[in-house]
Amino acid sequence: MQTLFVFGICCLFFANTAFASEAGGHADPVAPVLLALVVILVVAKAGSEIFERLGQPAVLGELLGGVVLGNLILLNPAWNFFEPLRVAHIEEHWAVVIDSLARIGVIILLFEVGLESTVQGMMKVGASSLWVAVLGVIAPFFLGFGVSWLFIKELPAELVAIVPADFSLNYVHLFIGAVLCATSVGITARVFKDLGKLQKKEAQIILGAAVIDDVLGLIILAVVSGIITAAELGQPLAIGALLRLIGVAILFLGLALLLGVYLVPKIMKQLAKLRTAGMMLISALLFAFALSYLANAAGLAAIVGAFAAGLILEEVHFRGFREEIHIEQLLKPIATFLVPIFFVLMGIQVRLETFADLSVLGVAAGLTIAAIIGKQVCGFGVVEKGLDRITVGVGMIPRGEVGLIFASIGKGLKVIDDATFSAVVIMVIVTTLVTPPVLKVTLARGEKK
Amino acid sequence: MQTLFVFGICCLFFANTAFASEAGGHADPVAPVLLALVVILVVAKAGSEIFERLGQPAVLGELLGGVVLGNLILLNPAWNFFEPLRVAHIEEHWAVVIDSLARIGVIILLFEVGLESTVQGMMKVGASSLWVAVLGVIAPFFLGFGVSWLFIKELPAELVAIVPADFSLNYVHLFIGAVLCATSVGITARVFKDLGKLQKKEAQIILGAAVIDDVLGLIILAVVSGIITAAELGQPLAIGALLRLIGVAILFLGLALLLGVYLVPKIMKQLAKLRTAGMMLISALLFAFALSYLANAAGLAAIVGAFAAGLILEEVHFRGFREEIHIEQLLKPIATFLVPIFFVLMGIQVRLETFADLSVLGVAAGLTIAAIIGKQVCGFGVVEKGLDRITVGVGMIPRGEVGLIFASIGKGLKVIDDATFSAVVIMVIVTTLVTPPVLKVTLARGEKK
Repeated sequence: MQTLFVFGICCLFFANTAFASEAGGHADPVAPVLLALVVILVVAKAGSEIFERLGQPAVLGELLGGVVLGNLILLNPAWNFFEPLRVAHIEEHWAVVIDSLARIGVIILLFEVGLESTVQGMMKVGASSLWVAVLGVIAPFFLGFGVSWLFIKELPAELVAIVPADFSLNYVHLFIGAVLCATSVGITARVFKDLGKLQKKEAQIILGAAVIDDVLGLIILAVVSGIITAAELGQPLAIGALLRLIGVAILFLGLALLLGVYLVPKIMKQLAKLRTAGMMLISALLFAFALSYLANAAGLAAIVGAFAAGLILEEVHFRGFREEIHIEQLLKPIATFLVPIFFVLMGIQVRLETFADLSVLGVAAGLTIAAIIGKQVCGFGVVEKGLDRITVGVGMIPRGEVGLIFASIGKGLKVIDDATFSAVVIMVIVTTLVTPPVLKVTLARGEKK
Repeated sequence: MQTLFVFGICCLFFANTAFASEAGGHADPVAPVLLALVVILVVAKAGSEIFERLGQPAVLGELLGGVVLGNLILLNPAWNFFEPLRVAHIEEHWAVVIDSLARIGVIILLFEVGLESTVQGMMKVGASSLWVAVLGVIAPFFLGFGVSWLFIKELPAELVAIVPADFSLNYVHLFIGAVLCATSVGITARVFKDLGKLQKKEAQIILGAAVIDDVLGLIILAVVSGIITAAELGQPLAIGALLRLIGVAILFLGLALLLGVYLVPKIMKQLAKLRTAGMMLISALLFAFALSYLANAAGLAAIVGAFAAGLILEEVHFRGFREEIHIEQLLKPIATFLVPIFFVLMGIQVRLETFADLSVLGVAAGLTIAAIIGKQVCGFGVVEKGLDRITVGVGMIPRGEVGLIFASIGKGLKVIDDATFSAVVIMVIVTTLVTPPVLKVTLARGEKK
């Protein structure tokens, strides 16, 4: 009965599709965007459902769903629907829109992560978190550089075409080192929450460290990207420019914090006085979009601005608004809609044919080992006695969305080619997959003691 | 002190903008989209704030805010930032994205309006609502046709270029008649709600009629658009094609209702069983997007599908989901973000220079009078005795967003040119502006009796 209905409806509409395209002018330009959204959201939710049932993070399911969509073309060359999203310069209108929705999605995500942490909170997390974070950035950076130096022996072809002849391969190694720095605060927190261990001291240290890690990682990303952009333009690696970049990054975050303390409460108080509906959400979105734009204008990544906007804004700033609801609850539906698009698109970028290349698997294995070992050094950063240092090291492993975001920026800079991107995706998948089960074991062992 | 901070930050970032554009490749393609979003949202909220303080509907403020943005170019030819949004074929990438966000916004809006009404509710509103709705569609249709016939003596230049020589001016009159049919259920409901009169019998009849009006209007829109599209392609106005169009429109809505009764509860029950987060919102969005796409594929407007999706889905279908929240609350933040973009964009389309043309003002005056008088006939549709028929007539006046949506579709079909579009906007502004104060008077008078 149900099947009959569905069949009838499908027949009707597909019969009429021809008619509509015949009718020509009437076709709404947003129609292909809607179709792409339906496919992407269905695949995202199907993937995350399967992975949640397997006890794995949902984000992995979205990613692998995207991998399936993007690689349908390998099964049948006619199934090339998503190719317009995989090219270096996206031109087709529907693909431009989907790409922008994904980028707005990741801005909303980093804004949410920023909202979860406060300036004060970051000051309080103490010596352990700081040490764990610093060690957890330094070790993977050098290990990543080393793995890249071992495995990657030539520049990506696309890059060679645009850079001066003296462009050093070290820039590629530098970027891969940066990609390995990030810890995914989202995934880490989610795993501890799902295991009901958020209040353990180890969890607190990891969460604090992950936040500091995000900031350190974003500064490193800004600096490394700046160095590479300068080199791609054939400008010498001037210490002045480097210092200027670091200066801009620190100034941006510093000014953001100053804004947080002095200006934002006053602005929000004024905005809260407005009578028009929806000002609470719109104020938050305006801060996020404006700081993302300014960060990009200042030469940083847009997401740095989104994170800074989240860091500045605190729950207390929203108390004056008429809406009796938390800002997180207002942002959540927008994130639910847009964030999966980003991860599916990341998955779509993966070209499975590159996996047939044994060297990709080699790089992937190398990066994964570097990513895991690099974060084990974190255990030595724990100042307090009697804590389970191995748990801290394991908890820092997942790279998740942040690693992917870094890698996608590297793709934009062309220092990361399809093959290396695929290797990074494998690293992200493995580090994210490996954490929940291992964490369960180390936590159980720690409690037995 | 505050000013100093703001000044310092502005200096820093605008100094660095040059640097970033120098750095080239690093610039995120979403940056211009973010800037446009910030400007549009600020203008939307400033406009709606001013209009709410004046006791007028917020939507008017958003519309006029858009008019200001779009016509900055009249003050200074260099202020042409929004011109890319005003051309017939939008090509610039950021403009394509903003245009799509607006279109998704209006889909969300019609979906919300659909959610507010139920299939059962529509059956119950009774004879009065039906008569009020039918009279309120027929009278303005013929009056609109008449005004157009009186004032519009030649085809739009853009249209002449693409249609066969025998394309009749009557098609333009037909479309303008259709534009006058719509009642804006959103604005009507909002006014009664703000006055605290939602439970009056007159209000109930108007709300029911407005819902039927929406459906009738959408069918008329589909039929008229179909006739015009066929004529533009030089096909004769075959009765067969016309019947087919009406058939498709009725079949679409009929199947939507059948789906509502038989299939949707079962589908939603299955979807509610999924463990992955956010399924309640994603299920709703998938229905809205899929039906919008299918409606468009069937030759109807995408918004017809969005409205049908809302009509099908009812609160009860969402009870099985884990989220303890109403679906309206989940959709609201997305609407808060996207809907104002649509109205600001509508305002941006208005070319104030066309107002200098006295004939535009003539058409506007004619349309406004037709729009107001046309709905006064509605009073005769009230079956019950002792009710205030004038209040019912006045309550049906506002055309609001639906009139604008129809007009924008007419622009897409090229039967409505810049001048006529400006006249329609004036009509929408006046009918929407005039209702709240007049309604207050008729209601007070009715209560005195």
